[in-house]
Formats: sequence, structure tokens, C-alpha cells
Amino acid sequence: MDKVKVGIIGLGRLGRRYAENLQFKVQHAELVAACSLNSDELDYAKNVLQVPHVYASHEDMLSRTDLDAVYIISSTDKHAEHFIAALDAGVHVFCEKPLALNVEACERVEAHSMQRPDQFAVVGFVRRFDPSYAHAKKKVDEGAIGTPFFVKSQTVDMDEQAPFQLDFVKSSGGMFHDFNVHDIDLVRWFTGSNIETVYSIGGAYRHKAFAELNDADNVLTTCALENGGMASIHASRTAFHGHDTFTEVVGTEGSLRIGRPAALNRVEISDQYGVRQECVRTFYERFEEGFLLQTQDFVDCIVEGRKPELTLRDATEATRTATAMTRSFREKNTVMCR
Amino acid sequence: MDKVKVGIIGLGRLGRRYAENLQFKVQHAELVAACSLNSDELDYAKNVLQVPHVYASHEDMLSRTDLDAVYIISSTDKHAEHFIAALDAGVHVFCEKPLALNVEACERVEAHSMQRPDQFAVVGFVRRFDPSYAHAKKKVDEGAIGTPFFVKSQTVDMDEQAPFQLDFVKSSGGMFHDFNVHDIDLVRWFTGSNIETVYSIGGAYRHKAFAELNDADNVLTTCALENGGMASIHASRTAFHGHDTFTEVVGTEGSLRIGRPAALNRVEISDQYGVRQECVRTFYERFEEGFLLQTQDFVDCIVEGRKPELTLRDATEATRTATAMTRSFREKNTVMCR
Amino acid sequence: MDKVKVGIIGLGRLGRRYAENLQFKVQHAELVAACSLNSDELDYAKNVLQVPHVYASHEDMLSRTDLDAVYIISSTDKHAEHFIAALDAGVHVFCEKPLALNVEACERVEAHSMQRPDQFAVVGFVRRFDPSYAHAKKKVDEGAIGTPFFVKSQTVDMDEQAPFQLDFVKSSGGMFHDFNVHDIDLVRWFTGSNIETVYSIGGAYRHKAFAELNDADNVLTTCALENGGMASIHASRTAFHGHDTFTEVVGTEGSLRIGRPAALNRVEISDQYGVRQECVRTFYERFEEGFLLQTQDFVDCIVEGRKPELTLRDATEATRTATAMTRSFREKNTVMCR
Amino acid sequence: MDKVKVGIIGLGRLGRRYAENLQFKVQHAELVAACSLNSDELDYAKNVLQVPHVYASHEDMLSRTDLDAVYIISSTDKHAEHFIAALDAGVHVFCEKPLALNVEACERVEAHSMQRPDQFAVVGFVRRFDPSYAHAKKKVDEGAIGTPFFVKSQTVDMDEQAPFQLDFVKSSGGMFHDFNVHDIDLVRWFTGSNIETVYSIGGAYRHKAFAELNDADNVLTTCALENGGMASIHASRTAFHGHDTFTEVVGTEGSLRIGRPAALNRVEISDQYGVRQECVRTFYERFEEGFLLQTQDFVDCIVEGRKPELTLRDATEATRTATAMTRSFREKNTVMCR
Repeated sequence: MDKVKVGIIGLGRLGRRYAENLQFKVQHAELVAACSLNSDELDYAKNVLQVPHVYASHEDMLSRTDLDAVYIISSTDKHAEHFIAALDAGVHVFCEKPLALNVEACERVEAHSMQRPDQFAVVGFVRRFDPSYAHAKKKVDEGAIGTPFFVKSQTVDMDEQAPFQLDFVKSSGGMFHDFNVHDIDLVRWFTGSNIETVYSIGGAYRHKAFAELNDADNVLTTCALENGGMASIHASRTAFHGHDTFTEVVGTEGSLRIGRPAALNRVEISDQYGVRQECVRTFYERFEEGFLLQTQDFVDCIVEGRKPELTLRDATEATRTATAMTRSFREKNTVMCR
Repeated sequence: MDKVKVGIIGLGRLGRRYAENLQFKVQHAELVAACSLNSDELDYAKNVLQVPHVYASHEDMLSRTDLDAVYIISSTDKHAEHFIAALDAGVHVFCEKPLALNVEACERVEAHSMQRPDQFAVVGFVRRFDPSYAHAKKKVDEGAIGTPFFVKSQTVDMDEQAPFQLDFVKSSGGMFHDFNVHDIDLVRWFTGSNIETVYSIGGAYRHKAFAELNDADNVLTTCALENGGMASIHASRTAFHGHDTFTEVVGTEGSLRIGRPAALNRVEISDQYGVRQECVRTFYERFEEGFLLQTQDFVDCIVEGRKPELTLRDATEATRTATAMTRSFREKNTVMCR
Repeated sequence: MDKVKVGIIGLGRLGRRYAENLQFKVQHAELVAACSLNSDELDYAKNVLQVPHVYASHEDMLSRTDLDAVYIISSTDKHAEHFIAALDAGVHVFCEKPLALNVEACERVEAHSMQRPDQFAVVGFVRRFDPSYAHAKKKVDEGAIGTPFFVKSQTVDMDEQAPFQLDFVKSSGGMFHDFNVHDIDLVRWFTGSNIETVYSIGGAYRHKAFAELNDADNVLTTCALENGGMASIHASRTAFHGHDTFTEVVGTEGSLRIGRPAALNRVEISDQYGVRQECVRTFYERFEEGFLLQTQDFVDCIVEGRKPELTLRDATEATRTATAMTRSFREKNTVMCR
Repeated sequence: MDKVKVGIIGLGRLGRRYAENLQFKVQHAELVAACSLNSDELDYAKNVLQVPHVYASHEDMLSRTDLDAVYIISSTDKHAEHFIAALDAGVHVFCEKPLALNVEACERVEAHSMQRPDQFAVVGFVRRFDPSYAHAKKKVDEGAIGTPFFVKSQTVDMDEQAPFQLDFVKSSGGMFHDFNVHDIDLVRWFTGSNIETVYSIGGAYRHKAFAELNDADNVLTTCALENGGMASIHASRTAFHGHDTFTEVVGTEGSLRIGRPAALNRVEISDQYGVRQECVRTFYERFEEGFLLQTQDFVDCIVEGRKPELTLRDATEATRTATAMTRSFREKNTVMCR
């Protein structure tokens, strides 16, 4: 195989980043087609990204016969539909997280994918490809901290993002689906266990408007794992220092922390404010390298015929837990995940 | 008043530290009497600490008429009894935490104390006197992080202490009463709110013997606060790097962390293990300065006629929450604290 | 211009990295020719890097008429000769540092280059392209630390590299030319001043063999700058924790530090060795991103017709100072740089 | 011996701290006499410190026959005179650093002291008693970093202190004698070697007034040690983040750093300025514990008949090197220390 021919559905804020990576930075890939409902985005794809073929409808794009793979970076409520259509088009499929906001839709895609075992089908949990998270996983697998039994993980976003997020709550499914789905995946990845029971609380401590949408600006969950382990998961929309994704993995012989502080780089300043580090301001700034490595890995899997580590089951389980957390938050009691 | 004349009940591991502070390091205090059931401890008090009067029974010691204050550092199950006896003897009373393992006993002492409003009566939550925690509280009170609404706090002890702790579980009341009672107090101190509901989980991940005693070696609690805030509390008996007490306070305009890393001092080593700091190994090593400042403060309150900030109500609330956490852990469901 | 056509001279350890970047990661560039004296390296270029034309002699490669630019990553003692030949071939030239081990050779290349003002000619000081160093420079230029007057900089390599370095001393010119040339450039970059006087000392504290070569395994220099400022420069071949490049810039209103600790990534481990971070092990691991950005920048300069910031004068000045430091070290006294 | 009876000469800013420690915090000591030329200071000693006997002249105080030890915290230019007078009075003598601003005066005191071998005579290098420095020394002595061959050390004071320091330059002897004398002692302590040659530079980068006094606000020295090792010593009067005493010890198998960052305590703040730690603001705040431990140690030496580790020779060597550094700075060339 010479180069993997890729089409992309969705060229929004994040879609554009995927497209740039595919076209310019990922080896053995070329972005041959892109579709979007927004004509400015298509112009951008054509003129800046030099994508030869652009489409206003995903059906049209999927009718091409030269595609090897499709990237779905559309809005969350369209993921399942686009995923199934892409599978039907006979291509490998990568979909941005979360796969869907309810377990049924996830399972529908899973079932569809099982009938096409030769097409890779994964949902992106980018943190697994971040060099720091990947290094931590390697250390854990090597036994550096004994048996991991407790994971603390948080997704903390900057307060300046909150107004934008407000518009986004309905389609994103709220904090548990949008933010914590990553933390849930990390808990499963590091412990090898699903989550059994959750108890979620939270509030709109700074931005009351989230409460009116049945959402919050800060949430906290305690998770009892199926294997007897435990997890504490936090999300926030109200940080002032930076985008602060942080995870701690505690094992029987040591512990690991990933991401503290959320430093922008290796520079430290000493001035009237003390000794300090500036922080990354967005999840993309934090995980830029992970996004590239994730995309390279999927392309490499196709080139090498190697099965991706992530499966649709990972996506279903993340949605299952996020759904239980959302219910627990609203019902103010513990909820069993299955 | 020249010097505050103090008697102490209990000269065990921690009692001895209090006695040394009172006799040698606290200004305006002198330790004139000590009682213990252990004759070696009395010898130590007489010969090393130069305490003039030692007793095998606390009743005998409390019958002295020259005492201004009594320190109760006996085993937890005797605290309430000793506290009431000391109040009846007409002295100011300081008692090591926790006041008791059940709310009723705490309230009995509270009621007794309210009838003697001129005698100070407090339980020691030493972290409030640690310079770092005190500085953090001052910053929070000055508004440095806006309104605090979320506290994460942990008491993490070294694995090498676990065998000793095993013998201690019955009288200490288990991890929630023995370890987390401090974290509960910090949550109340930083947020100004009591805890409404708790959900506690945990396990004996490394030392199965704790499970046989209905206890654990690691526990995790999510707390919903009465004022709508939230807290996550962790305790562990299985750390290898050090005694790692850590607290984070998140507010609407910033956050504070106290105690990370649990560094022994200001030395950093670079060698084949990377760049690293050694850590404190015991709670006493971590809070040595706090213990001294706490004792000095109580003596100063007596000298100056200034009411201590800590009250018996703080002790009752801590026990109330720890009791609810213990029940939640055993019943595997949320528990309302009152 | 469609793509910048590049030829490379030298495919050793570092040359190979440059070649990979040019062929696979740098936008708007293609590696069309490579030369090496080593046939294995040429096979690698042909088969793995898919370089269409490979040569055993640089003269043959430079006789191609389609080249836009040439990268010189040959051994230091050949740099000047290759540089002049490439200029004569009419192409833009990038040369790995140091340009030469003596000022005369540097000035000869400079003079030659001045006669070809339309061909870009630069020497690579990769740290200027490292995101942390670049961010620090931006902060300094914005006035974040007032006027910078003191730079401390070190290049500290791992002990495990020392045996390899031993073979390399003769052609590399020793620690001042090979290691500190970077630190010298940083001093000039951050302060805007040349170095006036140096006093260098050092020793073969761990590897006596360096002393026999008139070199050292650790050296230290105090620099008086022409503008009255000062610098302290250290180099080491004997670290056990990692490759530890570190620079501090002190200004009249604050200071900045770049690179402490030399952390491998964002992972922190807590175990029996304390709380620790693993470190990068080689200069390439530390500056991998800088090497890519540096190469991209040179290609972008060619595409955009934008003059590179680095000049041959920077290279000459670095060699001038490194030469003075070497003399000072040997003569055991201060040396004026000009 | 019951309690060591101490007299103190000098009750200025630092003398008062010594007096408080001796009277209230050091075990086995009592401050029975104090002398000062300032009657307010004597009132303070009498009324607040409850020193029973106060004097306007040191001769009068030294004529008391009950003194066991005398502390000399007078101005530097009086140290030698007071030291000799105290030795003649037959007591143990502790003197604040530096002993004198010239080697001759130091040697005169040394010679006088050698005739009174039963009287302890030391100069205070407080950093040796700081728990972090003491721990680092213990690690070095245990071989944790192999053989130490390179020390970097700095004394960096806050800019807000500079105006006060300006008045103080004449009696203090300038930055090398006043600030770096500590760093010199650390170099000797960690390496076991005297300093052979120094090259010092510097400038009045922010406060021109220091230049008019032949002093500077920032200085830098490279030291060649007699044993072949090396040291880099920096001092500054212009920091904005805090009092930043920092030392690095590099050995053949690892390295240690003491004091980075100069954190006030264990609190870290995350807010619009990033992730940051506030710093200590004065040398006393940084070394408060060291001052207490140093005083306790001298008293313990007297009680136990144990010879202090510090000797007058340490003081002489520090002054010898500081004198050479001052000369090098003024003559702009290397200077041999002896």
C-alpha cells in the first residue's frame, strides 16, 4: 500500500486539526476528501489543506471508491449515524470521542462493526497516545507501582472556555459525557476493570447558567470498580491557571502522577508573584502531540494490518459509565453502571 | 499568671511528644504532673522530663489543686471519660483527636463543657496549626481563590506503619476515625460547611488482615456538603515514599494545594533514579512544628484569656462524619450524616 | 516554489535525524540527494529514506543543478570546506554547529558568504528553536524580567556517553567547542552582548582519559560581557540522572529558568526512592522538537524569502569565545576574546 | 552544670533574635547579661527578654564572674576586639560571621584563642545548621553523590532590602564579605578543600549607588580549589521573588541541590499567574530554624564538653577568600587566595 487515502467528516475547531495532521504531518496518509455543511470550511479544506475533493454531504463523499479510511469529527449526536454509514462504505473508521450519548447507540455501532471484522473501527481516547500517559502505562505494566487499585483523574478546563461550552452542552451531553469520558477510559485502561457503581455530585458554583441546563461547572464522582478497586473523577469548567488534566494511579507498591503541574513548557519565572510556571490553556495545547500520534497510529495500523488497541467496546463502556454518572448526579444517589 | 501549670494523662508515643513540648519548648508553661498506667513511662517523665509529680491514676493527678490545664493523650476510648473528669477538676482541657468514636460520647462531653463556660475545652486538629495549612487558610480568607467550594484531602501513611496500625484498629475506630477525621475537619474549616451526605468505599488491597477487622488499607469518600459544596477524601496505609498528607482547596477564582510533594526538606537529589526528593516518613515528622504551635497556642489562650478557635463542636462534627463514612463503607451506600 | 529541493552532506548519528526530518516531517521540503563516505549510510538513505540520488563525494552531489539548499552535517573539521563548496554551488546552506574550531576558518566562510548575499547561510544553534527557550526569549524581549544582565547556562551530558565522547574529542575540539558553544550562543542571544573576557577551569574528575587529550569531563567559565553583564557557563560529561541542559537568565526585575528539571515527560513517580521524575537521556531526546522546528524554519525562510535570524556572525562569535575558553583553561588565566 | 549562663554583646536586628533564642527557646541556657550602646535595646532586653543585668559597655559585662559564654552579635568591625576581650574574660565565645574583614584580624583572634584551648571559640556559619544543608552534608558524607568536585552557591537577597544594605556596605565589607562568606564556607565544607584562585566580576545593574561605594548589586566568582575542584559563587541584591539562597553540589556519581525553590512553605497556588509558590523574603525567615539549632548546638557543646565542629580557622579561610574576591573584582583579574 502506498498511502492511506482518507476522507474526513467534519471540519470544525477539532476537525480542522485532524485534517491538518492527516494532510501534512502524518506519514503514509493523504487526505483526499472532506465533507462539511459549512462552505467556508470546505473552502479552507480546498485552498489551504489542498484536499482535492470536498463535499457538502457525507453520503456523497462515502460513495467514492478510493477511500481507505474515514475520520468522523462531526458533532457528537451524528457520530453513530456517520459511523454506520462509513462502515457500510467499506472503509476503516476513526471517530472522535464520545461515540454516542447513550449506550444503545454505541452498541448498535458495535454490532454493525462486528459484522465487518476486516474494517478497523475505533473511537479516539487521545490521552492514551500522549507520551506522558503512554509512559505511565508502560511503567504500570512493567510493575513499577505493583498492582494499581486506585485512580484519581480530572479534566479541568479554563474558565474562559465556559461561555463557549454553554452553547455546547446540549449536543455534548454535559460534563460527564464531554469531559469525564476521558477519565473513565483512563480508569479502565490503568486498572483493567470496568466501573460498577458511581456516586456523582456537583454544582454550578460560578456559572449558574449550567444549572438551568441540568449541567454543572464542577462535578465529582466516586467509582467502585468491578474488580474491587476505586476511582475518584473530577471535572471543572472554572480554572484560571490553565487546562489542567491530571491523573494519579496508586498501586500496591508505589504511585504515579501524570500532568502536574499543567506547565506550558520548561520555563519557570521568578518575579513578584513568586516562583511560577505558566500553564497550557486548552486541551488541544495539552494534547497536540497525542492527537498527532493517535492519528499516526491509526494510519500505521492500516498500513501494517495491525489491530488498533482501542476498541468500540472501550467507547461503549465510557458512555455507559458517563450515563450512570449523569443519572447519579441528577438523582442524588448511587447508580449501578449495568 | 506566671506559668501555666499543666498535667498530662497519657505518655505513649504521642503523649511523650506533648510532654516534651510542654516541659521544654512551650513558653509560659510547665509540666507539673503526669499520669500513665505504665511505670516505665512514669520513670521517663520523672527522670528525663523532670516532671515533679507522677501518678498511676488520673483521679489522683486530677485531685491536685494547683493545675491550670490538663492534656489528654490517652487512648481514644478513654478520651470522653478523662475529659469529663478533667472538667470536673476545674481545669482547662486539651484532648488529642478524635474526641470519641461515637457522636453520643462527643455530645456528652460538649454538654458537660457548656456548664463550665470558663474552662477552655478543645480537641486537637493539629493541621490547623501547621504553618502551611495556616497560610493557606489565611489566603482563602483573604479571597485569594474566591469562594472555596471543593476540597480534596488525603491522609496517606507509610506501608511500614501498617503492622503497628493493625493492632491499633480496634481502639482507633478504623481509617475513617483515625486518619480521615483530620481531613473532615479541614473540609469544614476551609468551606465553613458541615458535611451532609457521604459515600465511602475502599478495600484491603495490600494487607488483607485489615479486612478481617472490618477495616481497610485504602478508603475513598465523596462528600456532599450542606452548603452545596463537595469534598473528596482519601486515606491510605500503603505508601512507600513517605507520609503524604495533602489537601487541595478549589475556589471560584483559583485553587491552593498544601503538601505536595511531602518533601523531607529543601534537598533535591539527581542520580540514577532521576531527580527526586526524599519525603517525611511519619505524621509526626510532617507536623512536628504544628504540634508545638498548637500547644503554644492553647497555653497562650489560657495566659491571655483568649478563647481557642477550635471548639468541641468541631470534634463532634468530625466524629459524626467519620461515623457516617464508616457506615457507608460497610453498607455500600450513601449515608446522611444527620 | 513548489518544494525546496535539499541535498545533505553527512548521514551519521545526527545527519540521519536531519535527513528523516527533511524527508518526512518538514513541510515544503524534499530530500533529493545525500552524500556520505559510508556505503551503509547511503543504502539507508536510498532504501529507508527514499532519497532518489546518493553520492560518495560531496563534489558530485553539489554538481546537481536542481538543488535549492544543502545541509552540512559532516564532521566539524570538514564544515568550512563543505560550506564554501556549497556556496559556490549556488545554494542556500545550513551547517550543524560549530562552524569551525578556529576563528579564521569561520571568518573565511563569512567572507565567502558575504559575496553571495542572496544565498542564506546559517549555522544551527538548535536551542533557539526549542519551544521553551523560544518562549523564554519572547518573555525577555517583552520585558518580563527587566534588563537581562546575567546568564547561567550549562550543558550536562550523561556519563554513559563519555566513552563515545572520548573518541570524538579530537574532531569535536573538546568541551568548550562541542558543548559550551550552545551556551555561548544563548548568552549572546539573551543579553545582546558579545563576551569580552573569560576565565575557564575544569578537570577530568571521573574519566582521566580526557586529561590526556588536554580536555576535561567538567569545565566552568566566568564570562565578563562587553556590555558589562556577566555569565557563568558549565559543561559536564558525568551526569547520572539525564542530559541536563539548563539556563537561567537574571534581569533587573525578575529571572527565568529553562529546563529544570530535565524531565523526560509529565510523569512523576512516588516509590521507595521518594518523589521523582525520570529525565531525558540525550541531547537529541531533549531537543528533538527544536531540531524539527529549526529545519522547518530554514525551509520556510527559503519558501518565503525571509532572512534567517541566525547569521554566520553568530557562529564566528561562538567559536571565538570557545577558543578563548579553551586557551584560558590551558593557560590557567583570564583570556580576552578579541 | 545546671544551665549555661550567657551574656550577649549587640542587640540589633539579628542580636535580638539570638537573645530571644537564648532566653526562651534554647534548652540548658539562660541569658543573664546583655550589653548594647543603645538604651532602647537595653530596655527591650530588660523588660521583654527579662535579662536580669544589662550594660552600656562590654567591658563591664565581661567583668561579671558568673558568665559561661558570650555571644558577639555586634557590628562586624568590632568582632575581633570583642572576641579577644571575651576570651580574656575566660568564657566560651560565639561570634556572628564574618569574624573580620581582613585576614590579619582573623589570625590575631585565632592566635589568642589557641592560648586558651579550653574555651570554645567559633564563628557562626548558620547554613551548616539548617536541616536541609545538614541533610545534604550527611548524604554527601555517606557517598550518595560520589566524590564532590564542584559547588555552585548563591546568596540572593530581595531588592527591597537594597536601600538598607546601602547604608551597611562600609561596615559589612561589601557583597563578598557580607553575602558570599557563607557560600565560601559551604564550598569548603562540602569539598573539604580551601580555595586557591578566584576570578570575580560584577556590577551595579540596578542600584548605581553601590558602584560609588566600590561595591556591586550582583557579583559572580569562579573559584579554582586547592584540591583541583571548582566552585561558582553568585550574590545578588536585586531579586523580586524572595531571599533565594541556593547551593548545588556535584559529585562523581550524582548531585544535590539545596533550596530550590526558596518556597515560603508547602503551599502552591494556581491562579491567573500560573502555578506558583510564594518565597521566603529574608535570610532570617529562611534560616530561622538554623539559627536556633546553631545556638542550641553551641550550648550543648558547652554542657557536654564536646568540641564544636566549626573552628576559627573556618572563619579565617572565609575572610581570606572573600578578601581575594574583593580584590579580583576591583583589579579585574584572577587573584591567588594565599
